[in-house]
Parts: sequence; C-alpha cells; structure tokens
Amino acid sequence: MTVSPAKEEQSAIGARAETMLSELGAISSEPNRLIRLFLSPEHRRAADLITGWMKSAGMSVAEDALGTVCGHWQPPGATGKRRLLIGSHIDTVIDAGRYDGPLGVVVGILAVKHLASRNVSLPFGIDVLAFGDEEGSRFRSTLASSSACAGIFDNASLAFADRNGVTLAQAIETYGKSAAGIPAAAYAREEAAAYVEVHIEQGPVLEAKNLPLGVVTAIVGQSRMRVVVLGEAGHAGTVPMPMRHDALVGSAEIVLAVERIAKTYSADNMVATVGRIEASPGATNVIPGRVGFSIDLRSATDSMRKAAIEQIKQDAQRIAASRKLEVAFEPFHETVTTPCAPHLQDLLASAIEDLRIEDLAQRAIRLPSGAGHDAQVMARLCPSAMLFVRCRGGISHNPAEYASPADIGLATAALVRFVERFAETQT
Amino acid sequence: MTVSPAKEEQSAIGARAETMLSELGAISSEPNRLIRLFLSPEHRRAADLITGWMKSAGMSVAEDALGTVCGHWQPPGATGKRRLLIGSHIDTVIDAGRYDGPLGVVVGILAVKHLASRNVSLPFGIDVLAFGDEEGSRFRSTLASSSACAGIFDNASLAFADRNGVTLAQAIETYGKSAAGIPAAAYAREEAAAYVEVHIEQGPVLEAKNLPLGVVTAIVGQSRMRVVVLGEAGHAGTVPMPMRHDALVGSAEIVLAVERIAKTYSADNMVATVGRIEASPGATNVIPGRVGFSIDLRSATDSMRKAAIEQIKQDAQRIAASRKLEVAFEPFHETVTTPCAPHLQDLLASAIEDLRIEDLAQRAIRLPSGAGHDAQVMARLCPSAMLFVRCRGGISHNPAEYASPADIGLATAALVRFVERFAETQT
Repeated sequence: MTVSPAKEEQSAIGARAETMLSELGAISSEPNRLIRLFLSPEHRRAADLITGWMKSAGMSVAEDALGTVCGHWQPPGATGKRRLLIGSHIDTVIDAGRYDGPLGVVVGILAVKHLASRNVSLPFGIDVLAFGDEEGSRFRSTLASSSACAGIFDNASLAFADRNGVTLAQAIETYGKSAAGIPAAAYAREEAAAYVEVHIEQGPVLEAKNLPLGVVTAIVGQSRMRVVVLGEAGHAGTVPMPMRHDALVGSAEIVLAVERIAKTYSADNMVATVGRIEASPGATNVIPGRVGFSIDLRSATDSMRKAAIEQIKQDAQRIAASRKLEVAFEPFHETVTTPCAPHLQDLLASAIEDLRIEDLAQRAIRLPSGAGHDAQVMARLCPSAMLFVRCRGGISHNPAEYASPADIGLATAALVRFVERFAETQT
Repeated sequence: MTVSPAKEEQSAIGARAETMLSELGAISSEPNRLIRLFLSPEHRRAADLITGWMKSAGMSVAEDALGTVCGHWQPPGATGKRRLLIGSHIDTVIDAGRYDGPLGVVVGILAVKHLASRNVSLPFGIDVLAFGDEEGSRFRSTLASSSACAGIFDNASLAFADRNGVTLAQAIETYGKSAAGIPAAAYAREEAAAYVEVHIEQGPVLEAKNLPLGVVTAIVGQSRMRVVVLGEAGHAGTVPMPMRHDALVGSAEIVLAVERIAKTYSADNMVATVGRIEASPGATNVIPGRVGFSIDLRSATDSMRKAAIEQIKQDAQRIAASRKLEVAFEPFHETVTTPCAPHLQDLLASAIEDLRIEDLAQRAIRLPSGAGHDAQVMARLCPSAMLFVRCRGGISHNPAEYASPADIGLATAALVRFVERFAETQT
C-alpha cells in the first residue's frame, strides 16, 4: 500500500514546487539575470529560505562548514544514524535558469514533507542536502560541497581564488564558517544508506520521447583534448591545389571522422563534440598553416571511450599522412564514468512504472547523464542514483530553462515511491 | 641577329640587379623591417634612387601626379610617341621582401640600359614605369598609380584616408604633386603599343618544375564570399548524436566539397581556399550553433569560376539539408579574370625559348598569376603581358622572399629578346 501522491496531489505539489523555485530564482546578485555564487550573500539568503521550508516540512536543520544545508527527518520506526540522502545544489551558472539544481532540493523537501504528513514509518532517516558548489562558477573547486559530505574534499582547493582574489578559505570565513570544520561534514560510510538526486535532464531525449521521467544509468566519463594540425601556410592565389598542405581541409576530415567514430558507439550513447576551432593565420587570402580544435568525448563506459580515442587518433594520423600534415593530441581533462548503482536504478524504474503515467512506456526509460552532477561525488561514499525530469527543448544553463509543474509533481511522486521501495529492501 | 645578353653578361646583370635591389630594400620607414608606403618619405627616396639609375641608363625621367617615375628612352629609329611600357611597383606590404615589385622595375631599367648601350634601333620608344601604389598598404586605393596611367583613376579614392587620417588627396599635396594633374598621367591609346611586367611568381610552380621563367596566361579572377551555417547550439554531453544539428560538422563537409570541386577544374588552374573559420559560441563543451567561414576562389576563366561557385552552393545546400542546417552565401569581393594578350604571351615564350636555357623544357611554361598586378589595370589601356621569375619556396610578402641573381639575369635577357621580337611585329 503506497502513500505516493495521486494525480490531484501531484498537481498541488507541482504548483507548490513552482512557487518555491520562483522564490529561490529571485535570489540573485544581479536584478536582470540569475547569478548565485558559492558562499555569496545570495547563497546565504537561499540557504535561509530553504532552512525555513525544511523546518516547516518537519525537518531539523544544520549547516556544515561549506554551507551545505542539511535537513534531517527521523521518521517513526527509524533507529540509529542510518539514512537515505537526497540532494542537489543551489548555486548557479552566470545567467542561469531556475531549475538546474534547485529542482532536486525542492522535490526532496516536498517528498519528505509528504512522507512526514502521512507519518510513514521507515527503517532509516532521510537527509535532504542543498549543496552550494556544483557549477564551479566562483572557484575552480567544482563539487566542493558534495566532496566534503563524501569525505573526499581536497584541501588544496582552499587556496583557489575567485576573480576578485578572494580564496575559498577566506570566503568560508566570511560566510561565518571555518575550514577546520570540513572533515566533520563527511558522512560515515555506515550512516549513508544511499544517495539519490532529482535533476532536469539538460538534454532533449525525454522530450523527444514524450516522457516526463527517466532513470540515469551513469554519469558519463569525459575526455577532452586539444588537436593541433600543422600544414604549410601559403598564398591563396599562387599555390596550386595539388601542392597544398592545408591544415584546415585536413582538420575538416578529422572533424568528420570524430563524428563518424562516435556514432559507431551509439549503444554506449557516446557523444563527441568539436566546439572550438581556430585557423592560423586566419586571413581570407592565406592557406591555413595551423589549425587547433577541441574534442569533447563522453561515454557511459570508460573502455569504449578509450577505444574511440584510439580510433580517432589512428584516423587523424592517416588523414594527416595522406595530406603531408602533422597532427598532435593534447589531452587536458579526463573524468571517469560513474555508473549509477544498478539496484537503485531498478528501484527508481519500478517507482516510475508504479505511477502508471498514461503516456509512459511500459518500462521506464534509462539514459546516461552527459553532464556532471553531485551524484558522481556521492557515489564515492555510497550507492547513488539519479532521476531525470524532462526539460523544455533540452535547454539548461539559460534563463529559458523550464520543467513543468506537472512533471515536477510526477517526479515528487516517483521519489516518494522510490523511498517506499527502498525501505522494503532495507528491512 | 640578337643583342640579348649571353651567359656571362647575364651574370653581370644579375649581380648588378642584386645590388640595386639591396639599395632599394634598404629604404624603409623602419630599421628592422621593410615598409615603403605610397607617397611616404621612403617613396620619395626610392623614386630618387630609381631616377638616378634611369638617367645613367640613358633615359629622360619624369614623374606624374601620383609620383609614378617614368623613364623614357627614345632609340634610334623611333619616331612619334608610340612606345612599349615596361613597369612594376616600388611600394611594399608591411614587413616585405625586396623583390615583389622592385624586381620588375630594376629588370626594366637594366634591359633598356643594355639596349641603349648597343644602340639598338627600334620603331618605338620605351617607358619604364615605377608605380607607387600596387599593394594598397597605405590607402584602400590599391593600383591607383597604374590606374592613372591607364586613364581609369577613380577620383573617389582621393577621399580615402590612411590610418593616421591623412587622405590620398592630402598625401599627394604633401608629396609635392597635385591631384589636378592626375588626368595628364594617362597615356593615349595610340601611344601605348603594349605593357609588359616582370615579377616574381609568388608561388611554388616554377621552383617545383626547376624552371627559372614562366609566361603568365592570365591574372586570375577572384570571387570571395562568406558562408554562414546555422544549426542548433546544445550541451556537448546531453544531446545524442542523432539529435544534433552541428554547424561545424556540416561546415567541415562543405569545406571538403569546396576542395573537391576546385580540383575538378585543374585544367583551369582553379584554386579555392577557406582561410578563416569561426565557430559560435566557441566553447569546448557546447555544440556549435553557428559557423562562419570564408571562401576565396580564383580561376583563369570567369565562366569556370562561376560554374564552380554554383556547384559549391548546390553541394552546400544538399549537405545542409541532410543535417537540417541552414546555409547562406554572402559574396563580398569579385574581380574578373584579366587574360594576358595571346600574341604577347607567344612573343615572351619565344623569347624564353631563344635563350636556350639548359634545364628549360623545349617549350616555355605558361601559368596563371594567382595574385593581382599592375598589369591587370594596364590591360585596360593596351595589350599586356607578364613574365614570372622563380622565387625560392614560392615565398612572398615576407623578408624571406628571394630570387637568384642568375634568374634575374635570365629574366633581363628574356625581356631584351622580347623587345626585339616585339619590334619585328611592329615594323
């Protein structure tokens, strides 16, 4: 017997979520665009707002040394310190939308509020976590908040300075906290039963499939590299075509090879992007002698990504050789894939299927997350999973970001049902 | 019976040319790089140096309103005002080499000096012209000097200002001339028997074929356009490959199509170059939504170039349609092809063949000029032709520019022989 909110309740929850997201979205360092940086006065105001919501939902609230707001609900039946963690972040990019991050915090609070209102008995407590540093918009230290909770905070990041020269250590002091308290933010492994995060998809897949919710299979690993192609600059009028060593034409071939290779790994949901390209000397009437471009490769499996990189390198060398060019690869960023815990994925899928959403396929859809999330850090602490919510046009990091109240209501219902199903596995 | 200098004389002429080019190359507005702008104090000093050389070669010297130095030699047998024009330019690009332009003036002077020293009888006079504005380095008014001589000077260019705000009209005054005298610079059509220009190739063809000299078939026409490809920007991690409308990958296909199409017109010596490319928004982790790039297309035949442009447009539309992109072409520069006069090409070829250069193929090579020259303007006045001299590495517009004294000696011998052969056609 489930207490998961039915259709009418979902509508009310969705409307309430929309109001909460609007209130949070109004907290910005600029009047005409949304900017909420880690440990800023806006972070403080947002934390205070969330604290009030948590308390009225029946939670006790604490903050750790990095300002992460932690609302705790100890349900009837729960003994000891074991708890389910539900979280997301409340910092934003520059000129952000209102859903990326806050949605997961709001849905967590509303799910707990619903469970508490029904006096549901659970064999574990629930912590709702509002992290303050996921986007890395202020310091280079992205994911610092969840890293502290997972016990893997890197003290080296305390020395990172923002664009005004303020270090993370100084910002913590100004926020009224102390870096000395960071270790205490970490959960003990035996405390953390699991972590689950609700987030907008930030992509177009759910919308294209006309589905409100999806289960994340993995947070993809990323390989980023810079490719430099060297040819021979020359006069655009006087060097015959067969005598050219045009770095841009060679690069064009490599760009197409990158696309072709990524597509062969479609089962792995691999994506590859060349987002930057510069041709030198860059004049209309000069054959490019040097071209640099970026490759961003992401995949749900590290081994597939490594295999694809090898193929790209081989193809690029072959293309360069045929045109008497030189090509060099300079990797500059590497993140391993974080698979979501299979048993939590199954529970999320079952929870979605339990909702019997009219336009939902019989089986809940599973898809990788192409973007990074706090869940990839929390997975170092405990089994972790993510629930994606459809967002309009796949747009994020933009004021046009939007998820409908109906979908948010469904997400809350699915999260409540997940808690129930998870409880069944814990008894 | 020819007076054309034989091998030993050629060596002496080549050595003398090298000295003259060094002296001219030392006249610069900066100590460490060669810059000689139109109507500058350096233009004045170069003109004075050239005037001295012309006089010692047996010429009378005058300057027109744009500072073009005109050395006139009236040989025995010449009656009336009919004359052969031999010219090139003495202005330079920024950080120039010493050969682009001055070579043609020096070779012209040395050829006349040789003819005068042998007291050769000709049925026409010879004018050696040192133009001051071919590169367009100071004003937008490129080719102003030869345009005045050809009677097609555009008065609108008098208002063009240099980077210091000095207009061409003001610069003419400062140079001690008067814009009112520009019309008088024009040759009457009946005066100008023909125009011939000796110039470094500025390309690698002669060097690759191990040939010192070549006959120019045409100064190529140019079409320059900007291509804009519109797709859809998106998150590099969250948009699956089949859902992308990547403007850069589409552009890469078009860049390869441009190369492929230009190569099909190899008989026309067509060349196509994409020299500039910009991807927007231009971030490693964002799918490019918009790409702009340039196309520079040159050909020895206008009709072939137009046909190629149509093919490029069709291919681009096909590529764009297959990827759901939009593509637009914005032409911004168009120059028609200037064919060199066939009878003058034949005379230049015969003159080269008469030299019996050991490593020269039985027939003189003919090739188009991919760069613009004063000859394309002078062709509006009278039959015109060009003789190309091998330059090392095909390099020009660069301090590394180089043509050997031996090749310059050969070029002078070929020019003398051309004058003789041209005289035969004029009697």
